[in-house]
Amino acid sequence: MSAGTIYGLGLGPGDPDLMSVKADRLLRGARHVAYFRKPGRSGQARKIVNGMLSEGAVEFPMEYPVTTEIPVTDPRYNQLLSEFYEAAAAHLRTLADAGEDVVVLCEGDPFFYGSFMHLYTRLRDLVPVEVIPAITGMSGAWTATGTPITWGDDVLTVLPGTLPEDVLAARMAETDALVVMKLGRNLDKVVRALKTAGLFERAWIVEYAQMANQQVSRLSEKCSGVTPYFSIIIVHGQGRRP
Amino acid sequence: MSAGTIYGLGLGPGDPDLMSVKADRLLRGARHVAYFRKPGRSGQARKIVNGMLSEGAVEFPMEYPVTTEIPVTDPRYNQLLSEFYEAAAAHLRTLADAGEDVVVLCEGDPFFYGSFMHLYTRLRDLVPVEVIPAITGMSGAWTATGTPITWGDDVLTVLPGTLPEDVLAARMAETDALVVMKLGRNLDKVVRALKTAGLFERAWIVEYAQMANQQVSRLSEKCSGVTPYFSIIIVHGQGRRP
Ligand SMILES: C[S@@+](CC[C@H](N)C(=O)[O-])C[C@H]1O[C@@H](n2cnc3c(N)ncnc32)[C@H](O)[C@@H]1O
Ligand SMILES: C[S@@+](CC[C@H](N)C(=O)[O-])C[C@H]1O[C@@H](n2cnc3c(N)ncnc32)[C@H](O)[C@@H]1O
Repeated sequence: MSAGTIYGLGLGPGDPDLMSVKADRLLRGARHVAYFRKPGRSGQARKIVNGMLSEGAVEFPMEYPVTTEIPVTDPRYNQLLSEFYEAAAAHLRTLADAGEDVVVLCEGDPFFYGSFMHLYTRLRDLVPVEVIPAITGMSGAWTATGTPITWGDDVLTVLPGTLPEDVLAARMAETDALVVMKLGRNLDKVVRALKTAGLFERAWIVEYAQMANQQVSRLSEKCSGVTPYFSIIIVHGQGRRP
Repeated sequence: MSAGTIYGLGLGPGDPDLMSVKADRLLRGARHVAYFRKPGRSGQARKIVNGMLSEGAVEFPMEYPVTTEIPVTDPRYNQLLSEFYEAAAAHLRTLADAGEDVVVLCEGDPFFYGSFMHLYTRLRDLVPVEVIPAITGMSGAWTATGTPITWGDDVLTVLPGTLPEDVLAARMAETDALVVMKLGRNLDKVVRALKTAGLFERAWIVEYAQMANQQVSRLSEKCSGVTPYFSIIIVHGQGRRP
């Protein structure tokens, strides 16, 4: 019997119509479907594929043991997450060893800040693993703004909102085009950094890009001070254009 | 009669299986298909869709009047390109005004350094234009290396190889993860900048990512000193990972 393959299946930003032809096919044919979620939530990746799984598909939700309850700087955070990824990887390996293919659902592109990467590094030398690239959340977000992100010689910088404010501001000040990810509770800090860098007035925020509940606004016109984890800030480049 | 729509259709990095479900559908149903190419070449975007166009599809190749014959700093360069984009946009507008939909083929994601952007800005206020996001060449490239691009708090910087060497080296030295696009004749300069920034040994180069002739190598092990325009340099981030 030959081993099954673990697929890191990029779903794209959220609209099933923006999945790749390959992802769509693998998903509809999958017998085993795994995905991350917070305890008590359905999980964004699982929501995207609603109605697309085959009748007999076996689902394997992998529930994060911790998200924001413990600060990432606490050693226990790493410890808990590491054990969690080990256990999830072990389960997927058992399936693959038994000859079963498993599709692991990934929001956006799997190799771009994706949780799947933690399974990938644990599995890649043990069982066949294949990664299917996908449209990133940021492509979905800049398309939603209706304005191109980079022109000519523009430099694009992608910053996680989790970075310290001074680092954010310094990197923002130097770039032509900007993407800030992982917002949520980091929003206030990111807004201060954008103001320091002189980019606040040019910034857009896209919540749930390419999903049914997508919201696009100028950051300066955003009414509420809160934003979901699934939001991205965009500052468009203004480079050379004939 | 209602106006037709101009679609900026992102094709992704090159494998037709990585096109979105939406792009695949629009493409196969398209009556008018436009694409950029160099005179005398078939054009990369057109090559990607070989065998996918419908029988009666009318093709409209838009041939660049100039690519590298005139330096981009020469005012004539801008002048020639500007006239070219004006004429192409005018033709597409005529079709849309006559009620015809037109699919414009775009390599990768249309809003990410894409030529389509020059048509988009000229047409968006005159006729219906819709942009279909797609997998970028860089996602295709980092997936091909088999290693994730960004972890945790990693900063990603995307640099066009057309920038001056000192700017390249300075930006490279500050980032965690790096993508360099638009290589071709800029390769030697980019290699020198990578060495200055201490990143040369960690750099990978991917030619024709996700196409039949894909080549993945460590930059330090690349035998020839030339690389095609369709190549990307990748330096992977090494951020936090439990
Ligand atoms: C752990 S990262 C995963 C990124 C994903 N792999 C990708 O390629 O976009 C999660 C962050 O991605 C961003 N994100 C991903 N998809 C998004 C979408 N459709 N709309 C808004 N933000 C999104 C948000 O900033 C979120 O905090
Ligand atoms: C004018 S830019 C267009 C980028 C495109 N819109 C995208 O989203 O990737 C052209 C550059 O993209 C990069 N590129 C795009 N697709 C590629 C692929 N499949 N393989 C290698 N490089 C690619 C190359 O660096 C090339 O010089």
